[in-house]
Amino acid sequence: MALTFPFAAIVGQEEMRLAIQMLAVDPTIGGVLVLGDRGTGKSTAVRALADLLPPIKVVKDCAYGCDPAGSSLCEACQTQVGHKLKTETRAVPVVDLPLGATEDRVVGALDLEKALSQGIKKFAPGLLAQANRGFLYIDEVNLLEDHIVDLLIDVAASGENLVEREGLSVRHPARFVLVGSGNPEEGELRPQLLDRFGLSVEVRTPQDLDLRVQVVRRRDAFERNPTAFRAEWEDANTKLRQRIVRAKKLIQNLQVSDDLLMSCATLCHKLGTDGLRAELTLLRATRAYAALQGDKVAERSHLRAIAPLALRHRLRRNPLDDTGSGTRVQRAMDEVLPA
Amino acid sequence: MALTFPFAAIVGQEEMRLAIQMLAVDPTIGGVLVLGDRGTGKSTAVRALADLLPPIKVVKDCAYGCDPAGSSLCEACQTQVGHKLKTETRAVPVVDLPLGATEDRVVGALDLEKALSQGIKKFAPGLLAQANRGFLYIDEVNLLEDHIVDLLIDVAASGENLVEREGLSVRHPARFVLVGSGNPEEGELRPQLLDRFGLSVEVRTPQDLDLRVQVVRRRDAFERNPTAFRAEWEDANTKLRQRIVRAKKLIQNLQVSDDLLMSCATLCHKLGTDGLRAELTLLRATRAYAALQGDKVAERSHLRAIAPLALRHRLRRNPLDDTGSGTRVQRAMDEVLPA
Amino acid sequence: MALTFPFAAIVGQEEMRLAIQMLAVDPTIGGVLVLGDRGTGKSTAVRALADLLPPIKVVKDCAYGCDPAGSSLCEACQTQVGHKLKTETRAVPVVDLPLGATEDRVVGALDLEKALSQGIKKFAPGLLAQANRGFLYIDEVNLLEDHIVDLLIDVAASGENLVEREGLSVRHPARFVLVGSGNPEEGELRPQLLDRFGLSVEVRTPQDLDLRVQVVRRRDAFERNPTAFRAEWEDANTKLRQRIVRAKKLIQNLQVSDDLLMSCATLCHKLGTDGLRAELTLLRATRAYAALQGDKVAERSHLRAIAPLALRHRLRRNPLDDTGSGTRVQRAMDEVLPA
Amino acid sequence: MALTFPFAAIVGQEEMRLAIQMLAVDPTIGGVLVLGDRGTGKSTAVRALADLLPPIKVVKDCAYGCDPAGSSLCEACQTQVGHKLKTETRAVPVVDLPLGATEDRVVGALDLEKALSQGIKKFAPGLLAQANRGFLYIDEVNLLEDHIVDLLIDVAASGENLVEREGLSVRHPARFVLVGSGNPEEGELRPQLLDRFGLSVEVRTPQDLDLRVQVVRRRDAFERNPTAFRAEWEDANTKLRQRIVRAKKLIQNLQVSDDLLMSCATLCHKLGTDGLRAELTLLRATRAYAALQGDKVAERSHLRAIAPLALRHRLRRNPLDDTGSGTRVQRAMDEVLPA
Amino acid sequence: MALTFPFAAIVGQEEMRLAIQMLAVDPTIGGVLVLGDRGTGKSTAVRALADLLPPIKVVKDCAYGCDPAGSSLCEACQTQVGHKLKTETRAVPVVDLPLGATEDRVVGALDLEKALSQGIKKFAPGLLAQANRGFLYIDEVNLLEDHIVDLLIDVAASGENLVEREGLSVRHPARFVLVGSGNPEEGELRPQLLDRFGLSVEVRTPQDLDLRVQVVRRRDAFERNPTAFRAEWEDANTKLRQRIVRAKKLIQNLQVSDDLLMSCATLCHKLGTDGLRAELTLLRATRAYAALQGDKVAERSHLRAIAPLALRHRLRRNPLDDTGSGTRVQRAMDEVLPA
Amino acid sequence: MALTFPFAAIVGQEEMRLAIQMLAVDPTIGGVLVLGDRGTGKSTAVRALADLLPPIKVVKDCAYGCDPAGSSLCEACQTQVGHKLKTETRAVPVVDLPLGATEDRVVGALDLEKALSQGIKKFAPGLLAQANRGFLYIDEVNLLEDHIVDLLIDVAASGENLVEREGLSVRHPARFVLVGSGNPEEGELRPQLLDRFGLSVEVRTPQDLDLRVQVVRRRDAFERNPTAFRAEWEDANTKLRQRIVRAKKLIQNLQVSDDLLMSCATLCHKLGTDGLRAELTLLRATRAYAALQGDKVAERSHLRAIAPLALRHRLRRNPLDDTGSGTRVQRAMDEVLPA
Repeated sequence: MALTFPFAAIVGQEEMRLAIQMLAVDPTIGGVLVLGDRGTGKSTAVRALADLLPPIKVVKDCAYGCDPAGSSLCEACQTQVGHKLKTETRAVPVVDLPLGATEDRVVGALDLEKALSQGIKKFAPGLLAQANRGFLYIDEVNLLEDHIVDLLIDVAASGENLVEREGLSVRHPARFVLVGSGNPEEGELRPQLLDRFGLSVEVRTPQDLDLRVQVVRRRDAFERNPTAFRAEWEDANTKLRQRIVRAKKLIQNLQVSDDLLMSCATLCHKLGTDGLRAELTLLRATRAYAALQGDKVAERSHLRAIAPLALRHRLRRNPLDDTGSGTRVQRAMDEVLPA
Repeated sequence: MALTFPFAAIVGQEEMRLAIQMLAVDPTIGGVLVLGDRGTGKSTAVRALADLLPPIKVVKDCAYGCDPAGSSLCEACQTQVGHKLKTETRAVPVVDLPLGATEDRVVGALDLEKALSQGIKKFAPGLLAQANRGFLYIDEVNLLEDHIVDLLIDVAASGENLVEREGLSVRHPARFVLVGSGNPEEGELRPQLLDRFGLSVEVRTPQDLDLRVQVVRRRDAFERNPTAFRAEWEDANTKLRQRIVRAKKLIQNLQVSDDLLMSCATLCHKLGTDGLRAELTLLRATRAYAALQGDKVAERSHLRAIAPLALRHRLRRNPLDDTGSGTRVQRAMDEVLPA
Repeated sequence: MALTFPFAAIVGQEEMRLAIQMLAVDPTIGGVLVLGDRGTGKSTAVRALADLLPPIKVVKDCAYGCDPAGSSLCEACQTQVGHKLKTETRAVPVVDLPLGATEDRVVGALDLEKALSQGIKKFAPGLLAQANRGFLYIDEVNLLEDHIVDLLIDVAASGENLVEREGLSVRHPARFVLVGSGNPEEGELRPQLLDRFGLSVEVRTPQDLDLRVQVVRRRDAFERNPTAFRAEWEDANTKLRQRIVRAKKLIQNLQVSDDLLMSCATLCHKLGTDGLRAELTLLRATRAYAALQGDKVAERSHLRAIAPLALRHRLRRNPLDDTGSGTRVQRAMDEVLPA
Repeated sequence: MALTFPFAAIVGQEEMRLAIQMLAVDPTIGGVLVLGDRGTGKSTAVRALADLLPPIKVVKDCAYGCDPAGSSLCEACQTQVGHKLKTETRAVPVVDLPLGATEDRVVGALDLEKALSQGIKKFAPGLLAQANRGFLYIDEVNLLEDHIVDLLIDVAASGENLVEREGLSVRHPARFVLVGSGNPEEGELRPQLLDRFGLSVEVRTPQDLDLRVQVVRRRDAFERNPTAFRAEWEDANTKLRQRIVRAKKLIQNLQVSDDLLMSCATLCHKLGTDGLRAELTLLRATRAYAALQGDKVAERSHLRAIAPLALRHRLRRNPLDDTGSGTRVQRAMDEVLPA
Repeated sequence: MALTFPFAAIVGQEEMRLAIQMLAVDPTIGGVLVLGDRGTGKSTAVRALADLLPPIKVVKDCAYGCDPAGSSLCEACQTQVGHKLKTETRAVPVVDLPLGATEDRVVGALDLEKALSQGIKKFAPGLLAQANRGFLYIDEVNLLEDHIVDLLIDVAASGENLVEREGLSVRHPARFVLVGSGNPEEGELRPQLLDRFGLSVEVRTPQDLDLRVQVVRRRDAFERNPTAFRAEWEDANTKLRQRIVRAKKLIQNLQVSDDLLMSCATLCHKLGTDGLRAELTLLRATRAYAALQGDKVAERSHLRAIAPLALRHRLRRNPLDDTGSGTRVQRAMDEVLPA
Repeated sequence: MALTFPFAAIVGQEEMRLAIQMLAVDPTIGGVLVLGDRGTGKSTAVRALADLLPPIKVVKDCAYGCDPAGSSLCEACQTQVGHKLKTETRAVPVVDLPLGATEDRVVGALDLEKALSQGIKKFAPGLLAQANRGFLYIDEVNLLEDHIVDLLIDVAASGENLVEREGLSVRHPARFVLVGSGNPEEGELRPQLLDRFGLSVEVRTPQDLDLRVQVVRRRDAFERNPTAFRAEWEDANTKLRQRIVRAKKLIQNLQVSDDLLMSCATLCHKLGTDGLRAELTLLRATRAYAALQGDKVAERSHLRAIAPLALRHRLRRNPLDDTGSGTRVQRAMDEVLPA
């Protein structure tokens, strides 16, 4: 309905812009948690990125937007495997989890209309179905009920939505990039929650006055005449789009040496992260970053660039060492991966 | 049903009257929070302003009162784009959020009658639909449940109501001016809530005895014979109406210099407001105020006039400085914008 | 069903009897809160007054008892404006809010019978509709849920019941006198609640033994043979009825001087009441009292007589001055309105 | 279903037996609260009394058991006033409030069967309707939810059940004797609750060993062969029945002197009971006791006999005087009514 | 479905085995509370006993298993009194109260199927109906909600289930032996609860190693081949069955002297138990024990054998004497009933 | 839908792999609780094992997957006993308890579709039915509501699901291996819960860097090309499958000497475990372990190998001895079963 602010016109917030581009290249990195002040354009950035990406090819009329070339299909599409599937293109979905969304609307539920009018039990897909192959944006993760957050993270991790309720038993693909925002000042985030996001970034109110005027000017210009503003930034946006498309191809064959992998493990071991999720994330993010740079082999420099985003939020609080997470990650990198 | 007290006959409460006139000129300023004593005529003022404004042109029979000349249309009106839309005029809506209003009545819900009698699933628009292009008044914001307040503020900010429940998925325009009232003595307001209102004003019981007698006299006269009282104030009301209509035209091309914008940024930076919402509000409120004055260029004096209303409620509490918010804003203005 | 105790036979409790007679003369005074001991005949008095009043003329079959000569009509009656309305007479309604009354029964709700049997959505009026133009009695205001009390007070203040629920949107006249009783010993009353009642009176167990015997005798006599007892008091009751009817006529043109109004304002200012509700109440109560006395001009003595009832419950607690409210009102009156 | 233990065979517990006999003579005394140990035969006594009373004459098929000679009739019976009503006899009802009884079953509710099968809205009477003209027994008043207790006491006091829910508005006679039992050791009883019962009695485990053996013997004999046991006690029971029937006639014209009434007032004033309920109860209980003794005039000795039952539970706790309630009542009696 | 472990093959746990045999002989003893460690075979014992008992004769197709020779019949069976009832035999029911059983399933509820398909209101019997004339086993009484426990105990005591809900009013026989298990380590049991069980027994993990091996061997043998194991114990089981059947006959005419009854009263008085439930239980349990021994007259030795089971859980905690309950009962017996 | 990681390719986590293989051999061991860090592949292991096991033979179309050769059949299959049952093969079920699964979906519930469309009451089987003869995996046992956990453990122990709700009364076989995971850092586990699992194992983030790289490599290889990866591990998986199948045969006749059983009892007695569940588990786990080793007689060494898994979680906390559970079990073994 409303027109979208162009991604290329976003001022500042480099970490956030990098993170969501990486997720566009490899969604299995596992989402990003955006921490920081209100009013800094978090949702604008997500919506702008989705608008930037090329449309996707989907099985025609499929409620889940199944990828005709993919292996993860919904039940209806599976029955057609072997046949030539009809396809159509759609914009990359960005689904907003509105405040007050109920669990049944998130995961899907019994189709009330069909049940009432025809007496049959059918599944009405929810927001997780809509978000398949796109982005799911949750503003203020802290305000959502825990059980809905857990549910979203679980589905994001498995790539499948498994619904067992009201006598329904449905399983459908739900591969999406989870983008959550939160403000640590409004109540601390649970460690379990932090750990389940692939990356984390911080956004702050810019302190540079010229930058602030520039943000306000662009925002005001866009709001007063969105069409003209978008036209002005069309070329810059196109370049960014091509960069992401190229990275998605490069990543298929991008090499990571055993040496670099050992560095990932050493880094995680030194920082004492739980389990091996941190290492898998480092591996994938390094590849995505290298690909965005246009490189065919992952290097130590790529790892250094993304390690803070992948590790900062996974550190255990050490009561004897109140160094900030950022500093501890930096220090470990300097030892393990001297620049 | 009941006749409305004439806006021009309101005595005192200058800040509140200014704020709601500015919002009538530019609704994107983002609502106003009226803080202060009970029984000071807050709801009277809102209702009186809406009654003052000229009627609006809407698409005929549209449940959302879509603007035939606007770009933000409901789904039904969108399907008619390109055709010549039939129109009608309606009074500017003022919607009261009654105590005990349920969420489904606020955002809209499944049309129970249609569902029961015809077995079909249709959306029954709620108060947010009714409020489109008008005012939504919440008496005692503190008493509303948090999740409904958050929801209202979210919709007010985005201009759209997005409903995801009971298997419905509806999006419709909901651009309205939010007017909330609250009494800080009955429980502090959450900072997050304060920040989401564009402006704040304070109302107090008048201390001047003649003024008090005048208020009571006018109120009593109106209640004993509303028709006669309204006739008496008709001319004064008409002048106010013309002033607002003229300001709405002026604002389209009203200039704001880079210098003045830099002053906004400096002011906000000095006061440490979060994000850039405060700056956007200052920009818009300065323009609205200038237009109400009949000016074509925004000046430093305009900014000075409205800055307290736009900033006072956004300051963080500074434990080392218990100066009141008003004083801190004043002091910052004196440095940044010497009169 | 049960016969009512005659108003004229009530012994003692002068303040309470005065207050409800004043409300019968001018219902816009805003209800009365009866504070004090259990078992002192509060509900008896309300019921007895309503039984005393002459029947009212209403639009025939109207569920809201609309006044055919009034300007505030329900939606059905409004459609007949211009036609000659059929009328009938009914007793002044006294509605008891029974313990356990649900919100939907108070404000009205979807008519379940119609919805189930005919599949149509119709409003079934609630207690607020029944109470229109009469009395609504709430025993033990403290025991009602806050949200229902707030709702009742809101409706009592606006004279309209606005229902937004279950997809219904109904507005109907609901002008009634709210009579609440409460015992401050069973939990303090919220200041916000106190302020919303026009008047307050205190009732105590009588300490005079002869008076007590008289009360018990009359009560026992009435309960053993209600018909005979009522016959005995018929004449005394008729005199009271005529006094109220005459006062209702007198009040239409009853004069209040600017001087007396200034005294009201000075009194309120001195006592620091919030807003201007106290002054409006003083104005109206003075008029009602004067009219009950059969006077055509309001005098200082009338104001003195009713000021304690209108002000006592509106004082803020002053931690440095633990003088009782009654004493503080008296002291202020002695200064402002020397007898 | 099960046979009832004969009232005459009850051993000990004089206070309780006296209280329920008085209530059988004059139900307006207002119920009795039985305080004390579990397992002392409280419910046995109530059930035994009801079994003892002569059957009552009721309007034929009336769901409320309306008294054809009474003035308080249900809506159906009222429509037949003037006609000759058909009558039938029924046993005095004893209604047990089972644990887990829901509010709608207590007060009555929408008749679900009629609503579902025929789409019409009809009232299905509840336990209060069944209890009309009989006894309502609540074991462990403390365990019932407060709002149900309040509701029962309210109905017991007014003699009418007023139902406002689910769109129903019904009023029917519900005159019953409320018998509640409670154990002060399992949580104190609210003063408001205590005050609403006309009488209170204490029951204790008997300390006399022979008495205990006698109780157990009779109980065991009854349980092993109820029919034989009842036959054995038939004559003793008949005598008791005749005594109650005679007392119900005597009470109609039983005189109470002004002197005695003044003694009641003095007693209550001295003990500082709230309101005048205590006095009314003393008046009625004295009459009932005198009638049970076969006397035609109430005497000081009658008042002395029942005052402890009517007053003990109405005393305020005096923090400076920890004398038990019984002692305080005794002491006041010795002053006011020397034997 | 699953085969039952033979009662005769149970090793150890003498108190528990004795208690449930006594309850089989006289169910009016009032149930047993089994206190102690998990995993000690409590539910096995109950199930084994029921399997041991001879089948019962019931009215054919009766949902409550009414005894054709009994006086306590359900409403349907009552209508047939006088006719020759058809009968059938059924196994003694053992009903398990599963975790999460809802109140309506316990007491019975509206028959949903009949209500939906035929629009008529019928009672669907619950677990209490199933348990009539058998055993109701509640594992972990502590975990059940209080109101369900109270309800079960009430029904067990009265032998009738009285249902007042959803507009239903049903009364049916529900005479069953209540067996509850609890672990005092997982939260103390309410005194009111303890007092309502006729008997209590303690079960402990056996400390004797040979005994433990024997238990595990038998359990393992049974689980690997239940049919063979049962065959092996058939004879021992039959002997036990005959012993119970004989005791049920003996008890009809079993004499208890006044002397012995006085001993019961003295014992209870000395231990300060509330009410007379303890005495009735002692009387019944002594008779049952004597009958199991094959004796025709109850002796002091019989009383000594069962007194600890009937009294131990009824003692009040004495803060000045922390002697265990068992010791206090023993000491009182030594005084009152020297062996 | 998604392909499963091959069991044979799992690196490290020996205890967990052993435990679930033992459970595959003898499901009556009673489930396993996996304690430890997140992200260590717990759910991967369960899913991998089920994928490894040979398919099972079931009664055709049976909703519970009844074993045609078994004695525990559902009601439908029971009616066919004696006839030749049609069979089919199915994969061993692995049922995931998703976050937010409702109780009715777990235990089964009224079939809504049938009830609405045909007005008949039928049972719709739940997750417990699906899990019959397979695995039920609960991630984060701590996060499930207690009553659902209790219910699952109860059913797992009895092998039957007994449903008493909504007027349904159903009993069906539900023999499954319960695998729960939990992190003691996120809130301690209730002792009652611990005791109900047969075995417990700990999983930790591997500390060996080469191992970590190996895990990440394999995981990444599998995710990038699951089909190729599975092919590579097919042979290793087949060997594991044959080992389990052989062990299931061996266990039928596997001997355990009285001596070894006495060692089990001594061990449990020394460690003070409650009841005899620990001993039964030791017996079964020793047999399963011996069978996996290919042995025909259980030896002391087998018992030593599995005792820590069966006992560690059953120890009571000893406040005077803060030795870890593992150490205490080890110490007891060294005394009772010197190696």
